[in-house]
Amino acid sequence: MVELKGLPGFRDFYPEELAARSYIMGVWHEVALRFGFEEYDGPPLETLELYTRKSGDEIVQQLYEFEDKGGRRVALRPEMTPSLARMVGARARALQKPVRWFSTPQLFRYERKQRGRLREHFQLNLDIIGESSVLADAELLAAGIEILKATGLNATQVRARVSDRRVLAAIFRHLGVKEDTLEDVYQVIDRLEREPRGRLEARLEELGLGPEIVSEIVATTELRGLDELRAQFGAVASVAERIAELSVYLEHLEDLAVAEYVDIDLSVVRGLAYYTGIVFELWDARRQLRAICGGGRYDDLLRIIANVDMPALGFGMGDVVLTELLREHRLLPEFRRSIDCFVAWMGADAGRQALRAAQVLRSAGLSTVFEFRERRLGSQLKSANQVGARFSVIIGPEEVEAKQARIRDMSSGDERLVAFDQLARVMRDEANGA
Amino acid sequence: MVELKGLPGFRDFYPEELAARSYIMGVWHEVALRFGFEEYDGPPLETLELYTRKSGDEIVQQLYEFEDKGGRRVALRPEMTPSLARMVGARARALQKPVRWFSTPQLFRYERKQRGRLREHFQLNLDIIGESSVLADAELLAAGIEILKATGLNATQVRARVSDRRVLAAIFRHLGVKEDTLEDVYQVIDRLEREPRGRLEARLEELGLGPEIVSEIVATTELRGLDELRAQFGAVASVAERIAELSVYLEHLEDLAVAEYVDIDLSVVRGLAYYTGIVFELWDARRQLRAICGGGRYDDLLRIIANVDMPALGFGMGDVVLTELLREHRLLPEFRRSIDCFVAWMGADAGRQALRAAQVLRSAGLSTVFEFRERRLGSQLKSANQVGARFSVIIGPEEVEAKQARIRDMSSGDERLVAFDQLARVMRDEANGA
Repeated sequence: MVELKGLPGFRDFYPEELAARSYIMGVWHEVALRFGFEEYDGPPLETLELYTRKSGDEIVQQLYEFEDKGGRRVALRPEMTPSLARMVGARARALQKPVRWFSTPQLFRYERKQRGRLREHFQLNLDIIGESSVLADAELLAAGIEILKATGLNATQVRARVSDRRVLAAIFRHLGVKEDTLEDVYQVIDRLEREPRGRLEARLEELGLGPEIVSEIVATTELRGLDELRAQFGAVASVAERIAELSVYLEHLEDLAVAEYVDIDLSVVRGLAYYTGIVFELWDARRQLRAICGGGRYDDLLRIIANVDMPALGFGMGDVVLTELLREHRLLPEFRRSIDCFVAWMGADAGRQALRAAQVLRSAGLSTVFEFRERRLGSQLKSANQVGARFSVIIGPEEVEAKQARIRDMSSGDERLVAFDQLARVMRDEANGA
Repeated sequence: MVELKGLPGFRDFYPEELAARSYIMGVWHEVALRFGFEEYDGPPLETLELYTRKSGDEIVQQLYEFEDKGGRRVALRPEMTPSLARMVGARARALQKPVRWFSTPQLFRYERKQRGRLREHFQLNLDIIGESSVLADAELLAAGIEILKATGLNATQVRARVSDRRVLAAIFRHLGVKEDTLEDVYQVIDRLEREPRGRLEARLEELGLGPEIVSEIVATTELRGLDELRAQFGAVASVAERIAELSVYLEHLEDLAVAEYVDIDLSVVRGLAYYTGIVFELWDARRQLRAICGGGRYDDLLRIIANVDMPALGFGMGDVVLTELLREHRLLPEFRRSIDCFVAWMGADAGRQALRAAQVLRSAGLSTVFEFRERRLGSQLKSANQVGARFSVIIGPEEVEAKQARIRDMSSGDERLVAFDQLARVMRDEANGA
């Protein structure tokens, strides 16, 4: 019979790959908890409407969606924010505000065209709900940057690109863009780095915008830093108001010791339709990979999903690009299987004693493996090395007779004899380096 | 707009429920690592054939299965073992044997009839592949029992029920059951506790078995303990051989200090078609819940899935029944949100200083939250209590002036002043109880 294979775009995590994933998950958890966030999780399968209500039917093309046996239209979650909005909304009154939650779900997207691209990834989602202060925006970005710092990435290796949809809206309104065209303009800008400029200008013109407005929009996306922004639009009152808030935001980032990572970059808008305020992306400094992280403020989503009015903001940080970047900078810990003790034995009586020894060592908290069948000592010690044992505990007929075990330090080769009833204590001290 | 709801049978894990799940996941990881197992993970979506190849098309009724946009028949994983067999099979030559792996996947089943039942759960899967020795069978069960011990459950609260398909096969063959009827007989026995005895006898007769054989089969399933088994079938050579192995198995369990949890119980066969040898289930002693865990030897599965010949054994332990049982015995740790520090502030200058203080405290490894907007101190301290802060760090205009922060122990109400530049050191000592 032919052997079965996994689906294209889905990863198998053998222990080595799982170790890399666990490392990243560990950093996510550590920083999120240090920032006082609580962990939650939602279901990987949701009603299709949870995703179409805000994003429209277009998103269906990119989803794993189907009809379940009860006739419900369902989808594997492509993002976590709608589930979060649903969950927070359902307990909006009872939950203590602001809600500070994080989760590390696996997400799924069916992208037909992109061969070789993954169809799943893991993503840290970190959100603050019930707080409109710009200080919360700063806190959110600081958490994202602190995660990168915790992996060892510095400000020459990764950059935060920050923009503000309210700044852009104020500018575009000032330029004469109509209210109901704004979202379409954002969607075009979001393709900025993936399409040639001519194509973008054509798309903007298709929205009914005149060539002059189009070139002013394009020029706006080229603004970098508060000074350029001020110089260009500081005299427009509606824009100046937003610039003032961005400037407070930057001061907060300075106090939170992450400002050196941050660039104001008006070409960033984020693709998802639900963003309403400050948005940001984290990138490798040379921009050779995709974005590491993206997020921002989405003050309307809870009303749309859950019929409650709560300001909200959050980001998603995927495992794939981050792993790539860490590997590139040699910041991913090397995987090496390791256990504390390997129990080797020769002879039936020793076999029984070996199991008792393993039980005692495990009860003392030491990770321990024993040999399943009698083999030559040399073969057993080879196995001990292969599983990364720091110590071998060797029991043969003589050791049984003397009620002792021979302990071998697998790196130095040093051996010593220890009485059975001292084994757990001695090995615990050894393992702790005492 | 009406608010959206989650799908029936899928759980939302709010922080409190997530904490219970994390506790159980933590125990699973701790014991699996202590037993020298390595973690792996497979994809939640697989080809449908991975599940139908051994279990037949009948299982399709219980699956979340659909056609993906590329025309593939796919299914959300209902169990982990086929993915494991696929993954190990694909690297059978390169992997070091025996493979000792564990994983904690979320699994999915669509059971139309059972209203109110969950359609997903998390399950520890722990497997040993490449080892035929009965010592591996003992090691596997010992790991399962040690998990329950680690939660505080004792031998009066949980029991392991052990049987052996090879013992049953030898007996049934001896009774005259034909080879190609054996699997059907197991399937009937597996319903033993869910159906009235008369119904079972009728089902066995439907398999073409005479009333005498039927009553002997039923009597066999009522055998408990090795002595009863020996008394009944010890004289049958083919059975005696298997009894001898079971007896070695029990001796191993004794050496591994878990024998007091174990009962030989020939009514256990396990429902899945792929088991080939010793099988077991862990139950609450009063058998009021469903099984906590089930597993055993499945020596043929890797050949069927991956075309490689490797003996294998493993178990699955779900989170739902275990959580219920731990709650019943009050062994589930109480959930209480807790952080180290809450930074309260009054006045704009203090606000800036508060962010710097939070940053310094977090850098020292202390979980820290700060107030997002200026409020009365009383309100801020109330928030500090709500988030479970052990300490509040209070900064007002006077503290800014004196370059100090006021530290309040939230349980005792004691306060003291600390210089800004000593804050991290002092709070780290306080948090460590120094």
